[in-house]
Amino acid sequence: MKNVKDFIGQHLEQVDQYLLEAIRTQPLTDSLKESMLYSLEAGGKRVRPMLLLAVLDEFGVPLEKGLDAACALEYIHTYSLIHDDLPAMDNDDLRRGKPTNHIVYGEATAILAGDALLTEAFRLISSSNQYTDSQKVALITLLSEAAGAAGMVGGQLMDMEAEGKLVELEHLQKIHALKTGALLRFSIEAGALLANVQLEEKKELMTYAHALGILFQVQDDILDVTSDSASLGKTAGKDEAANKSTYPALLTLEGAIAERDRYHKEAAGALTAIGKQDGLLKSFADYISYREN
Amino acid sequence: MKNVKDFIGQHLEQVDQYLLEAIRTQPLTDSLKESMLYSLEAGGKRVRPMLLLAVLDEFGVPLEKGLDAACALEYIHTYSLIHDDLPAMDNDDLRRGKPTNHIVYGEATAILAGDALLTEAFRLISSSNQYTDSQKVALITLLSEAAGAAGMVGGQLMDMEAEGKLVELEHLQKIHALKTGALLRFSIEAGALLANVQLEEKKELMTYAHALGILFQVQDDILDVTSDSASLGKTAGKDEAANKSTYPALLTLEGAIAERDRYHKEAAGALTAIGKQDGLLKSFADYISYREN
Repeated sequence: MKNVKDFIGQHLEQVDQYLLEAIRTQPLTDSLKESMLYSLEAGGKRVRPMLLLAVLDEFGVPLEKGLDAACALEYIHTYSLIHDDLPAMDNDDLRRGKPTNHIVYGEATAILAGDALLTEAFRLISSSNQYTDSQKVALITLLSEAAGAAGMVGGQLMDMEAEGKLVELEHLQKIHALKTGALLRFSIEAGALLANVQLEEKKELMTYAHALGILFQVQDDILDVTSDSASLGKTAGKDEAANKSTYPALLTLEGAIAERDRYHKEAAGALTAIGKQDGLLKSFADYISYREN
Repeated sequence: MKNVKDFIGQHLEQVDQYLLEAIRTQPLTDSLKESMLYSLEAGGKRVRPMLLLAVLDEFGVPLEKGLDAACALEYIHTYSLIHDDLPAMDNDDLRRGKPTNHIVYGEATAILAGDALLTEAFRLISSSNQYTDSQKVALITLLSEAAGAAGMVGGQLMDMEAEGKLVELEHLQKIHALKTGALLRFSIEAGALLANVQLEEKKELMTYAHALGILFQVQDDILDVTSDSASLGKTAGKDEAANKSTYPALLTLEGAIAERDRYHKEAAGALTAIGKQDGLLKSFADYISYREN
């Protein structure tokens, strides 16, 4: 069985290089470029790009085919973190153990760096030499839907509006399906598109993607309760302090763990249905479900 | 000679309807949708979309062909105003005589509404039924270049960095070429693309577009000195109070007026070279040069 940690280990440097070079090589205003690169460099394991590449790997497509879409996705994810951390939003000073963008560059530059990364995502795909026009259009449609008002941005607003209230589980799931799930689904859907995955298989992959989105968030919530700030690279226990709706708050910690295990089973089941129960995507689901930070 | 005021009068309602309906008809979180529509509704004369449509009109192409690109452009322009007005940026409470987005909806929602409109611009083009895939890709490439780090966003940052200093005329022109010029150039270039304008004619149109960008800014600066807040719908005299680099500050008011007239002549000359000296685009240049708000 291919292992996700080996896969990330093998490809992380290439992905990091690729997404930084695409910005570094442009003639941009210094402070704007620095600010964009600062947040891109604090990237961690590049879960979303790696997931897209993992789909290509699973279906035997050369990974180069996925680089532009994967990097565009990471630009969108990075912009969303920069804007989310702003004082008017989550007001976070620390992200992955480093001062957040606006702490280093000021709020105005952070807002603009986010805007620039968001715009750059679409430029990267539309000017790519890896795709046909038809693939570009399909990727941009999917990415703009996932990232926009009916996707991630909408979820971010619903999340803010739910702050300080305990909402119903169904509402919490809707928030996460948009806020974090939409980009994770894009990883899988874009990979399936570029690998020409047929309809029946794609249906199972999207079930897998949906489960993965929930797993990601449940485990995030569980770690906020069970881990410490040093392991997380961010402030632990913050959700409870903010009286935030989380899976443990709504279901108890045991209930959240049961929910995680249920969705892990669902993800594994979808992969089994297409004969991919022992591959890289299965390892990805294990990793997201049982990671420690 | 076709007149720009008649043209805008004839098409404003259709453009307004079109760009609002594309948001209204989507199932979005209420507060996000309201905030996006609020700033879109305060739209004024839609100079950028009208300019794109004017190119189509000048070359005999049905205006329907331009609607999606024109509205995408207006989404980008509107998002940039929302973000520019934020406390961390220009800190403006008033825009076109109405409270700015963050005054009404709060900063967090205003940031997200801007992000959503920016994303929506690319979604609108990529999911359009007015264009071929090849046209979509070309439009998205042009728009993302014009709006992003090497275009409008870069110009906005350079403008902030120049605040409170008197910069050289050349630097001021660079700032404006990016901050306001890039989107105006997109209006013309997208119009030329959709009208299949040939290379030699396109070259003249881009000269016209460049001159128009400068005209727009020079006249803006002149009005800030010579007009009052009621006529402008925003605070007059703000540039001088902020010790901002403007054409009148660098060249005196008379010098700025001479600069405006020089670029007006350049714009007119480019149109004459392609036999369009008496058409709608000429009327547009007259309007932008001699407008009173």
